[in-house]
Amino acid sequence: MIRLHVNQALEAGAEIVPEAAQAHYLTNVMRLQAGEALLLFNGRDGEWRAVLAEAGKRRCRLVVQALTRPQSAPPDLELAIALVKRARLETIVEKAAELGCRRVRLVLTRRTNADHAKTGRLQAIAAEASEQTGRLDVPEVCEPVKLERLLDAWPEGRRLMFCDEAGDDPDEQWGGDAGRARPALSLLSSAPSPEGRGQAWTVLIGPEGGFDPAERQRLRSLVFVTPVTLGPRILRADTAAISALTLWQAALGDWR
Amino acid sequence: MIRLHVNQALEAGAEIVPEAAQAHYLTNVMRLQAGEALLLFNGRDGEWRAVLAEAGKRRCRLVVQALTRPQSAPPDLELAIALVKRARLETIVEKAAELGCRRVRLVLTRRTNADHAKTGRLQAIAAEASEQTGRLDVPEVCEPVKLERLLDAWPEGRRLMFCDEAGDDPDEQWGGDAGRARPALSLLSSAPSPEGRGQAWTVLIGPEGGFDPAERQRLRSLVFVTPVTLGPRILRADTAAISALTLWQAALGDWR
Repeated sequence: MIRLHVNQALEAGAEIVPEAAQAHYLTNVMRLQAGEALLLFNGRDGEWRAVLAEAGKRRCRLVVQALTRPQSAPPDLELAIALVKRARLETIVEKAAELGCRRVRLVLTRRTNADHAKTGRLQAIAAEASEQTGRLDVPEVCEPVKLERLLDAWPEGRRLMFCDEAGDDPDEQWGGDAGRARPALSLLSSAPSPEGRGQAWTVLIGPEGGFDPAERQRLRSLVFVTPVTLGPRILRADTAAISALTLWQAALGDWR
Repeated sequence: MIRLHVNQALEAGAEIVPEAAQAHYLTNVMRLQAGEALLLFNGRDGEWRAVLAEAGKRRCRLVVQALTRPQSAPPDLELAIALVKRARLETIVEKAAELGCRRVRLVLTRRTNADHAKTGRLQAIAAEASEQTGRLDVPEVCEPVKLERLLDAWPEGRRLMFCDEAGDDPDEQWGGDAGRARPALSLLSSAPSPEGRGQAWTVLIGPEGGFDPAERQRLRSLVFVTPVTLGPRILRADTAAISALTLWQAALGDWR
């Protein structure tokens, strides 16, 4: 059944006039007929069954009927991703929605070439992927922020999984055993409370070419950072993001 | 450093004349100069350092110098993927190479719309991804085969991880507890020998829209099949493939 994300409040009997693009999608692309049903969600009121009450050229109107699923809170998982090329960034946002992220933070690093992103377009991709994947909310896509700024304002209690493709470097002076990068699954599987289940986490993926040494040093020195490795091969940013989010969901999230 | 997959034998002193496309890539795209080094691998002889000995318009010649990494055998992991749209199939082949698959089998199912794929193009994508990801071989991309045929000729001793997006269906008559789909990580983490580590596995991903009931029934009835689930959301085929391969590598493969 068609699922649509809307902004309006949802309750039995509510009438929804969809935006022009959504009306076009319903009546022209999907060819939904008056009287046929679809599902609506807004990230707050759960998922509702609705019917297309009016499907005219000038006006499209939906009537909300009954709750199909109550709103639930997904695990508090964020993705922080360095800006990469547009096509890969769009893929990453789509996948973050499928893999249950609450929020996508776009990050500027020293080796990031781009300095802006079309967040409106990325937000629309997140909404469409959320419609298709069956979730009850849409991840927020935040405006790009510098890595230093993000770390300076790090919220109390949230952990950061730092996917460090450089892995362990025996020449590094900082960190010692505490700063060693370990295989992500081994680390997540052994995460004790309060570091593990039920805690808020952010997965951080660097740009193509990785973080620069000063960034790695700072990341590894922070108490809320857990450095991990993602296998022996070099992964592109989109693969690393999907793999890291998968391992988190499987070990600590809602795939269990 | 640039890495190239070649077909020729590699040994110290060997001279390699790259194919026209590779010569163009080296000299025109990457602007490699005579005397500069690169890495070569062929899937058999390990990885070798070579130098560009001649970079003329008419002729490009490499001389193999020294072994940088001996050939190693990756875990015996295959991906069997139902034909999906071209762009997603290309992504999947790229990711299968990054995630260490030995082979990609293209599968025709009852709900597969396409019946052929450009395997030559997919094989080239696999080679390029292998060059970038740092592996010492290139996964083989096989011609499409019907699911029934694949299962009829299943090799002794290989296990099949069946990613069943429909999950458990209480109305199903077959299977019982033995046929229940469990979270993929929980299943892989508990895999005892000989079902687990060191064994050959194939990950099977269905088409958009899933397998049809008869296909699911047959899959669940086979002793070499392990049905698993990949979380509570509907995943696109590319996401499901990357997630399943990631979990296998993390639990049983070379990410440990």
